[in-house]
Amino acid sequence: MSEEPVLADLRRRMEGSAFHGWMGMALGAARPGEVELTLDAQSHHLNLQGRLHGGVLATLADTATGLAVRTKLTSAQRHVTVQLGVQYLSASGRGRIVAVGRAVRVGRQIAFAEAEIRDAHGKLLATAQVTLAVMAQRA
Amino acid sequence: MSEEPVLADLRRRMEGSAFHGWMGMALGAARPGEVELTLDAQSHHLNLQGRLHGGVLATLADTATGLAVRTKLTSAQRHVTVQLGVQYLSASGRGRIVAVGRAVRVGRQIAFAEAEIRDAHGKLLATAQVTLAVMAQRA
Amino acid sequence: MSEEPVLADLRRRMEGSAFHGWMGMALGAARPGEVELTLDAQSHHLNLQGRLHGGVLATLADTATGLAVRTKLTSAQRHVTVQLGVQYLSASGRGRIVAVGRAVRVGRQIAFAEAEIRDAHGKLLATAQVTLAVMAQRA
Amino acid sequence: MSEEPVLADLRRRMEGSAFHGWMGMALGAARPGEVELTLDAQSHHLNLQGRLHGGVLATLADTATGLAVRTKLTSAQRHVTVQLGVQYLSASGRGRIVAVGRAVRVGRQIAFAEAEIRDAHGKLLATAQVTLAVMAQRA
Repeated sequence: MSEEPVLADLRRRMEGSAFHGWMGMALGAARPGEVELTLDAQSHHLNLQGRLHGGVLATLADTATGLAVRTKLTSAQRHVTVQLGVQYLSASGRGRIVAVGRAVRVGRQIAFAEAEIRDAHGKLLATAQVTLAVMAQRA
Repeated sequence: MSEEPVLADLRRRMEGSAFHGWMGMALGAARPGEVELTLDAQSHHLNLQGRLHGGVLATLADTATGLAVRTKLTSAQRHVTVQLGVQYLSASGRGRIVAVGRAVRVGRQIAFAEAEIRDAHGKLLATAQVTLAVMAQRA
Repeated sequence: MSEEPVLADLRRRMEGSAFHGWMGMALGAARPGEVELTLDAQSHHLNLQGRLHGGVLATLADTATGLAVRTKLTSAQRHVTVQLGVQYLSASGRGRIVAVGRAVRVGRQIAFAEAEIRDAHGKLLATAQVTLAVMAQRA
Repeated sequence: MSEEPVLADLRRRMEGSAFHGWMGMALGAARPGEVELTLDAQSHHLNLQGRLHGGVLATLADTATGLAVRTKLTSAQRHVTVQLGVQYLSASGRGRIVAVGRAVRVGRQIAFAEAEIRDAHGKLLATAQVTLAVMAQRA
């Protein structure tokens, strides 16, 4: 797929889900194998210490990597995250957060992807690695 | 600390944060080194495939382990998650989810914790491990 | 399989490999879904700081979990580790090390296993989680 | 430190340890924050299926990242791996393996590093992430 259909397909998928709106995630750029998500961190995204909650960063990483792998699958395939690892490098408060997910290797049974999450100044907040199972779409 | 002050302290901390209410997490039981959280999974917690989003499970794991470690710290200390790993064992849809976080080892500089997340029938949905930095409370 | 054939099968597999002897690992107890390995840590197993090398602990974890999953597969199946996570809780020097690997969930496509590694005094040195792909045996 | 003293310091450290020779690892290039190790995989490095053992790859990753962080510390500091994650992307047999470890962020208490391991043809075999504790050197 070239860039435009990829973006249109992901946009359609995300609009069909209440999760992304509730979480506050929006689709930025997308091309085969790479997807960018943005989130404007607000007070309800912060932990008890006033920093962006680790769960929000993990959610961005899981979603960006899953969508990046999705762009490399056929319509007959689906993906499920089986393992997620996140390293929290720097703390962040409110403001725009950008997560970029990349498919590292997409096989017939297993896929690997990674994500980098940065704040509006480009500071690296977290890195993540995701292992996914690739399966046949349910009938 | 015995069981009641631990629970009261955590309840006070969670009430002071918009995050937990927004996420839909509630504090269940708590005792030194172990904290139970519950979440009633609703449609906005589900991913594009109608299953509980991996990010929600990661958030429960991160929160339950962080609070479990918190119960083992003095008021002069604070904790920050530095690494999170989650294994997604089974998919789940709506309904009550229970996450139990346990402090495995709390040192002066590093702490380790783990979490198990189950659905209302006791089915194991995810396991998680968290590495935390232990630091002096900010002045 | 009951306990004895499991042990005999694993013993046969390990004897057919130069790796285990070189590494210094020996098979302890084994039953379906759980395998115990021992290693007598010598000077060449230690890192620059005189502690048991993290790679040796990772190797014990990977091997014990792989064998534990192996006991739950048919002869038509094989397993491949796709992701390994290790938490290093305590340092150790020379002496007997015991690693116990347990299959947590073995599906048709994905398996999950975990390991605990202790020194001769029962002190927990490391915990590990392994995600594996389950595949058809090569012809 | 510039490139040469870094290399000389690491070479001295590795020569003082029986581990590296036994494992078969050799120091390749090194500069501040990045260390390359090589290993000529032989039959005793292979698992039961004839592929490079996951523990050997984990050992290379742990060592390369630890040395990379070591180049960023003062002589008054030391490092200890607290968490290791490895993704196994492709299988490999005998032949030369190259592991490159990079320090991602080295703080006063916590450091993060990552590694990529490739075969002689440049094929990516594994990626790894390491979280380390930074401590004062023992007296």
